[in-house]
Amino acid sequence: MAGNCNANPCDLSRDVCQLKELVTTQGKQIGQLVRHMKTGCKKPSKESTLKGLNPCIKCLQPDVLYHLGIDTATTNFPKTFGDVRFVCMGGTAGRMERFAYRIMKEIGLKLNPATTLRNMAEDGHRFALYKVGPVLCASHGMGCPSVSILLHELIKMMHHAKCQDPVFIRIGTCGGIGIEPGTVCITSEALDSMLNPYYEIIVQGKVVQHSSKLDQCLINELLSLANPCEDDFDTVVGKTVCTNDFYETQTRLDGAFCDYTNQSKTAYLQGLQNHGVINFDMESTAFAALTSRANIRSAVVSIAVINRMEGDQVISSPQSLSEWEKRPQELVSRYIRKVMLGPDDDSDTDDQPDSNPCIGE
Amino acid sequence: MAGNCNANPCDLSRDVCQLKELVTTQGKQIGQLVRHMKTGCKKPSKESTLKGLNPCIKCLQPDVLYHLGIDTATTNFPKTFGDVRFVCMGGTAGRMERFAYRIMKEIGLKLNPATTLRNMAEDGHRFALYKVGPVLCASHGMGCPSVSILLHELIKMMHHAKCQDPVFIRIGTCGGIGIEPGTVCITSEALDSMLNPYYEIIVQGKVVQHSSKLDQCLINELLSLANPCEDDFDTVVGKTVCTNDFYETQTRLDGAFCDYTNQSKTAYLQGLQNHGVINFDMESTAFAALTSRANIRSAVVSIAVINRMEGDQVISSPQSLSEWEKRPQELVSRYIRKVMLGPDDDSDTDDQPDSNPCIGE
Repeated sequence: MAGNCNANPCDLSRDVCQLKELVTTQGKQIGQLVRHMKTGCKKPSKESTLKGLNPCIKCLQPDVLYHLGIDTATTNFPKTFGDVRFVCMGGTAGRMERFAYRIMKEIGLKLNPATTLRNMAEDGHRFALYKVGPVLCASHGMGCPSVSILLHELIKMMHHAKCQDPVFIRIGTCGGIGIEPGTVCITSEALDSMLNPYYEIIVQGKVVQHSSKLDQCLINELLSLANPCEDDFDTVVGKTVCTNDFYETQTRLDGAFCDYTNQSKTAYLQGLQNHGVINFDMESTAFAALTSRANIRSAVVSIAVINRMEGDQVISSPQSLSEWEKRPQELVSRYIRKVMLGPDDDSDTDDQPDSNPCIGE
Repeated sequence: MAGNCNANPCDLSRDVCQLKELVTTQGKQIGQLVRHMKTGCKKPSKESTLKGLNPCIKCLQPDVLYHLGIDTATTNFPKTFGDVRFVCMGGTAGRMERFAYRIMKEIGLKLNPATTLRNMAEDGHRFALYKVGPVLCASHGMGCPSVSILLHELIKMMHHAKCQDPVFIRIGTCGGIGIEPGTVCITSEALDSMLNPYYEIIVQGKVVQHSSKLDQCLINELLSLANPCEDDFDTVVGKTVCTNDFYETQTRLDGAFCDYTNQSKTAYLQGLQNHGVINFDMESTAFAALTSRANIRSAVVSIAVINRMEGDQVISSPQSLSEWEKRPQELVSRYIRKVMLGPDDDSDTDDQPDSNPCIGE
């Protein structure tokens, strides 16, 4: 088709811009379709990519994931969980349910209007577990023992389901050290309360230490998705001290017991800050060590709900806490979108119902 | 009134028996009324009976019990919680709600028909907390860190509410060692995974050990309420090993990881049994140590859901688990009834609506 040489150059220029945008959008859609087709055509793998697991697992017929209330006798794991590529977890059931609905929108999935997400771990009475396509969202309660139970059972789930390269991300809350409440903290290294980079367990009366180092590539990838110029929050990277106690080990003055002074507290926190520590949490060493042992890439992205250099009591309003909890979720959503849909995808999937696969049908 | 000398001796004898029973019943009611009056007439105490608490608590105005979602600015603690005499806790929210309704019946309280029990810790999003007259029922999640958070906040609650001699009882589940599933276990001593009778915390980088010994009088009192001839379950007393990990530290062969053999597992469990250990749990050292530090009498009464000498996976039916969970609740209910209503009280309060004070009005 010949061009219209009499057309107004301004109109032509505008048309060129619009067409270029259309070409870019279509290019992305083609890329997505090719990726989807490739995934669909892949031969199902015989085993998961997890390593270092208990050799006895294969003898567990059935395997009962007691605290999840799910077992291999009544659930077909490869069919139900085989497509999982991201396992996101956080403390409370409500937060993880909200994240499940958020990520559903972010990756362009829709529920059948007659259905709702179900807590798949309801029969276990301990955790909440929601599945949104390739994203599993789980609550882990508080503390290393609790998250350790969840991880043992989720890792076995990944194994039974033959999952391929699942990435585990803890989306938590934390107490910041010298950083403002509302700041997103990415953990560079999880330390125990003695500042050692390991998670210690006792096995048959003997102390065993497992490295709690995290995947540095994943940390950098997550950090690259923060947008300091446009985000209305800061994202920082630093060491996390993981404690077994919220009050005394985090040197709070507001617990039921307190055998130290305000001065020694300040000196202790200052020492941590000098050591490169940006926050306290209560799960990161167990989370890092157990995922790492299983050859699972993992990261910890938390929101600081307090700056411990300025106080101990969490007195931020429910509105602020609710607003802040969305920030690490935003960063993790960007990561999941990037992995699933490719970089710089800005398409609003809500306007493209035909491209939205449905779940729950 | 003169006696009827012509009456049949058999009839007279029956009348005497019936009258004696009536006198006994009335005597108990008089005793209860006197106790109630004494309690009612007591001058309200200025302070709780708790000791050894953080001297800074008085400066916390308000004190925000963050994980319970309750604070001293918006809740009148002495009015709301001042009558608490028993604090019962267990792992899951559902179990503690069921216990709350059970104890309501056991101590003869009734809800206003237009009301239901409310989870008073709903705003904290972590624990469940129900109050039935003088009995507080709380879920504590899994593991020492989780129960430690709950205890710090409940102990501060007792302090602010000026509670008098509250007794704390953990009504838990556990893995039995050499005892049958369905057996009620009373903990004589809570040991850590190295078999030490203390709960270790790190404070400002230093290890601090707190004794995890339990109140022996309370243990004996609870054991005396077991009725081996009539109960359809056994009740045993022995040491509990409290672990920070359900799988490896409890030497299970069915976790995601397992670096030991069936033989070393059996030898380890046998060693524990020889040491007087009857069960594993994941909360007893923190529970014992924190209550003891605050001058609170406490006990741990658990139901064994498995005999670890015979297996690792909890595969009992939901019906059995549901039936068994009532057994430690039964023992604790007997204790609470005995303290509140006096010994050997068998009156069925359901038939005496006038004597049942209402709650929730």
